This record gives sequence, C-alpha cells and structure tokens, in this order.
Amino acid sequence: MTADLAGLKETAEFLANRDNFYILTHQSPDGDTMGSGFGLCYALRKAGKKANVLCSDDFPKRYSFMYEGYEPQKFTPETIVAVDVADRKLLGTRLNGYADYVDLCIDHHVSNERYAKSLLLYPDASATCEVLFQVLTEMGADLDKRIAECLYTGIATDTGCFKYANTTKLAHIIAAELMEQGVDIERINREMFDIKSKARLKVEQYINSAMEYYLDDKCAMAAVTLDTIRKAGLAQEEFEGIAGMSVQLEGVQVGVIIKEKDEGKFKVSMRSASDIDVSAICAKFGGGGHVKAAGCTLEGSLSDVKLRLLSGIAPEMGIDLWLA
Amino acid sequence: MTADLAGLKETAEFLANRDNFYILTHQSPDGDTMGSGFGLCYALRKAGKKANVLCSDDFPKRYSFMYEGYEPQKFTPETIVAVDVADRKLLGTRLNGYADYVDLCIDHHVSNERYAKSLLLYPDASATCEVLFQVLTEMGADLDKRIAECLYTGIATDTGCFKYANTTKLAHIIAAELMEQGVDIERINREMFDIKSKARLKVEQYINSAMEYYLDDKCAMAAVTLDTIRKAGLAQEEFEGIAGMSVQLEGVQVGVIIKEKDEGKFKVSMRSASDIDVSAICAKFGGGGHVKAAGCTLEGSLSDVKLRLLSGIAPEMGIDLWLA
Repeated sequence: MTADLAGLKETAEFLANRDNFYILTHQSPDGDTMGSGFGLCYALRKAGKKANVLCSDDFPKRYSFMYEGYEPQKFTPETIVAVDVADRKLLGTRLNGYADYVDLCIDHHVSNERYAKSLLLYPDASATCEVLFQVLTEMGADLDKRIAECLYTGIATDTGCFKYANTTKLAHIIAAELMEQGVDIERINREMFDIKSKARLKVEQYINSAMEYYLDDKCAMAAVTLDTIRKAGLAQEEFEGIAGMSVQLEGVQVGVIIKEKDEGKFKVSMRSASDIDVSAICAKFGGGGHVKAAGCTLEGSLSDVKLRLLSGIAPEMGIDLWLA
Repeated sequence: MTADLAGLKETAEFLANRDNFYILTHQSPDGDTMGSGFGLCYALRKAGKKANVLCSDDFPKRYSFMYEGYEPQKFTPETIVAVDVADRKLLGTRLNGYADYVDLCIDHHVSNERYAKSLLLYPDASATCEVLFQVLTEMGADLDKRIAECLYTGIATDTGCFKYANTTKLAHIIAAELMEQGVDIERINREMFDIKSKARLKVEQYINSAMEYYLDDKCAMAAVTLDTIRKAGLAQEEFEGIAGMSVQLEGVQVGVIIKEKDEGKFKVSMRSASDIDVSAICAKFGGGGHVKAAGCTLEGSLSDVKLRLLSGIAPEMGIDLWLA
C-alpha cells in the first residue's frame, strides 16, 4: 500500500471530523512515541472525543508522568492513528493486527514504510512531537500543562535535549511555546537525561575501565564478553546507547564497542566524532549504518576481531600499519 | 559606588556612541563570559569600532573556536565594559586595576555588586549572552556565524544545553534565531558537553567507585582524600562540577562530595534532587548556598565528618537515627 501524503490542514480536519481513536505507539516505546501518543490522546479527549493509547509493551515507568491518572476508555474503535511508527513491524506483536487498518500515521522518519492510508510525514522535523504540535495548533487545540509536557518530552528526548544536529529552529520555538503552559523542564530533563540506575552505572563503569586506546589515541575500543557480563553481573538491558561512550574522550575520532552476543560472535557498534565515515568502515565487514553511527557483526576470537577492526579503521585515519 | 541601572535602549545607544572598547571577562572564564566578550567584541568591530577582549586568565582552549583568528587591536582604551562579571573581585589580578573604571556592566547575576557606573542587569535571564543578544538586536547589529556561535555557546553552557530550570522561553527563541546564522550546534555541544579529558574520566571513575549509599539509599556520598588524590594520580583541576555526579542515581535525594583540601580539613559540596533544602543542612555546619546546591567546610577525621553530615541530613528526610 502506498500512503496518501497528507498536509497539516487535511490532518487537522481529519482528526476534527473523526471519533473513537485508537492511537498506536511503537514497541520499546521512547519519549517521542509516548509523548505524541498521550499528547494527541489528551488533546482529542479535551475536544470531547474518545481516545486511547495502545502499545505492544507496557508503558515504561520513566514516562509515568505522562500517564498518571490515565484510564483507557471503553468504545469501539473507528479511527486508527499511529504516531512515530515508521514501519508496521514496529507495532509489535500486540498491535500487529491493526497494521492494515491504520487510517493516519504521523511521523518524522524519512524511512517511513508508508503502510498507513494517510501519512503526515515531516522528515526534517526533529521529532514526531514537533509535527504533532503543528497539527494541534492547526486544530486550535486547547493545550494544557500535561499535553505540553508530553510534547516537550518527545522533542527533548529525540534531540538529546536540543544537543544533536537534528535539532531544528522550530524545535526551539515550540519548546518556548510549550513552556508557556508551565512545563517542569527541570524535573523532566533530570529524569530523561541525568538519572541512572545502579545497574546502568555499573555498566558505564565497566565500559570506562575496559576502554583501550589505539592508533595514536584516535581510536577508542571497549569489549564486553559473555564471560565478563556473567562474572561482573552486568545487566544486559542497560547497554542501550552505550556506544556514545566510546567517543567521549577528547581526540578520539572513531569509537568502537564490541559486545559478544553468542559464543565467538561479536556485535560491533562504531561511532565517529570526526569526518571519518564509519558506515564505510563497517561495510568492509558486511555491516552498515550512518556516517556517524554504524555497526557490523564479526566472528572469531576477540583479539582477532579487534585486529581486523583496527586494520579497517587505520587507513581511514591515514595511518599505515606497515610503517612504525 | 551604586550603579545606574540601564535599559536596553540606553545600553545600545551608549555602545553605538562610544569607541575603543576594552571588554573585561571574569577570571576562570566560562562559556558565558567568553561568549558575551567575544560576541560583543566582534559586533563592535563589525560596526567599525575598535575593541579587545581581556581576561586575567588565558582563554581556555575549549573555547578556541571563539577566538580563532582573533588579534588584539592597538588603541588607547576609552570605554570599559564588563560582561558576566558579578563582582569586581572576579576580574582577577590582571584586570583588577580596571575595577573602578568600568563604564558598563552587562550581567544576569542577581548578586551583581554594582561596581560599574552603569549596569544592564536582567536577573531572570539564563545567561549574559541572552541579555547581550537583546542589546545587539536593539543596536541593529549585523550578526554572523561567529557572533552567533559565541552567543549560542554562552546560553547553552549556562543552561546545561537548555536542561536546567534557569532556561527561559527567550533562551529557546534566541537559540532559534542564532541557528539562522548557521551555528554548528552539533560540534559546539559535543565539545561543551560530551568530550572529556583522560584525567577527567579518571576522576569520574574514581568518584563512581567511591560512592557510598546511606539512609535507605536516599543519600549518596563520595569522599576524596589528599592521600587518594596522590596515590590514584587524580588531577585537581578535573574536579570542577563533579558534585552533580552525586545525585545521578535514581532515588537519591541528597548527594554529597567530600574533598580534603588540607590535612583533616574537608570541603563539602551538597546537591539536592528533591524538595530537601541543602542550604539549610549546610547552614547547620556554618555553610550555605542555594536550595539545590550548597556547601560547607568541616574538620576532623573523614569518618566523623561523614557521620556529622549524615546526622544533619537524616532528619530532613524524616529519618530518625535513634530508631532502627
């Protein structure tokens, strides 16, 4: 199916004319799908409509401020809207059955698979919440503190708190408008960016202590084996986003985290903090990704995996390993 | 001396009517004093005036993008402007001689000592750069990428990249306007917030490993003794801003970093991640500060210092140490 590309006005009219909404969020929900899901749900309810937010996974506790006091309403769904769901597969097992019946998808992922009947896609937006804010403005929706906190969280989490290159001018302008509603940015940002679990701190400490430096200290590399994970009691689920740690040291151009998935099989995450294209390096090993963030999978002994990676990275730094 | 409080219009006119500027920044320069110093200097030079930026310390390397290609001009100073300098003492030894001759101070510190002849003070502004942007707009100054990067950096560093409670709506709106000039926010924010020196990483690793948890894990406390600093080879200058690490664990309400300054003399930094007022706790020990960040100095053995602090913190958490 190829989605009809919708504009802001059409989308606003569609939402205004329909009722009994199921709002679908993606599995492993993040701040943007949660924020756009609940932000839209509350705005629709304020407009006198019935709406629920659905997810294949439980709503994570860290976003509990979004769904405190939220109760699913009872009604027969008439309108299915997906928010921040780029691909029907991301609906997950519980919501998979709705994939063919999505009336509208609101998204910012350029990779959107166009599975919905109608698609409002702003690929240059920093977050789906940035797109949704414009829809709600077009609808003349009555924002309040809770809706504003949902939308703010989506924008803040997708931009690393306005830190990453994907941050748009509009993201800042919308943040200013949302702050008018009394968003508690200090509490939200602390919870989203500063607070860590004991298990996460342990993983970070391990990664820092395991970091090795190669190629004139321009390449940082840390490896975690199954044996280490067992012995050090590291929590598997706390490794998310750990690859960024490999490029935090000044002067490091390429950072690598090697994680043993199965005995002798290593998942490699590579990051660039320079002009070096790590997707090109990972492609040498059958992997791929983006210029600044890529990955590949290698098999063999850990020391050979490291050696192969370094021999692939060195030439990109203009370093000839055959010369002393 | 009591400064005349100036408005935006007056300040803009004053700058437009004067020439041959010495712009004074505060010692131990941060992003905001550097950004407002160089931002103002470049804007004045673009308006055909002579201007230099002065500092008692060397300009830090991390802000080198602000002063790349900058050359001091030769002229006899006629106008002395201080930016982000709340107190004459903060001018430092090299600039101390100018303290009585400051014509204009542009600042956002509510604590400003009013040593300048004229003072443009916006205590609710997130940064001096936020105030300066308004002055430059009032002057109709011709911004460019370099000026915009200076101002952006001041606002970003003083707000923790729009993360802290001091972030204003205007800070976001100004950020959006500065981005129009092509500010490389990814590079700047990476350099300001993500990159760390090996020495800093070592200090952070030490602090994490030394962290102890008390009072139902609601209080985190780490101590660094002179002996540790010597033996572990920790760099004294890398302890700046380390106190925030004490409240990164979820559930921690009060965080404490204890640093031995002289044999048996401990500097205590206390942070609150809750409603608990740490300035009140520090006041019990002759210290003070803000509700969320305070400090005090205690003498004795480290174990006694910890005990005294915990006995001061416990009642604020409603914990009675006499009950099991």
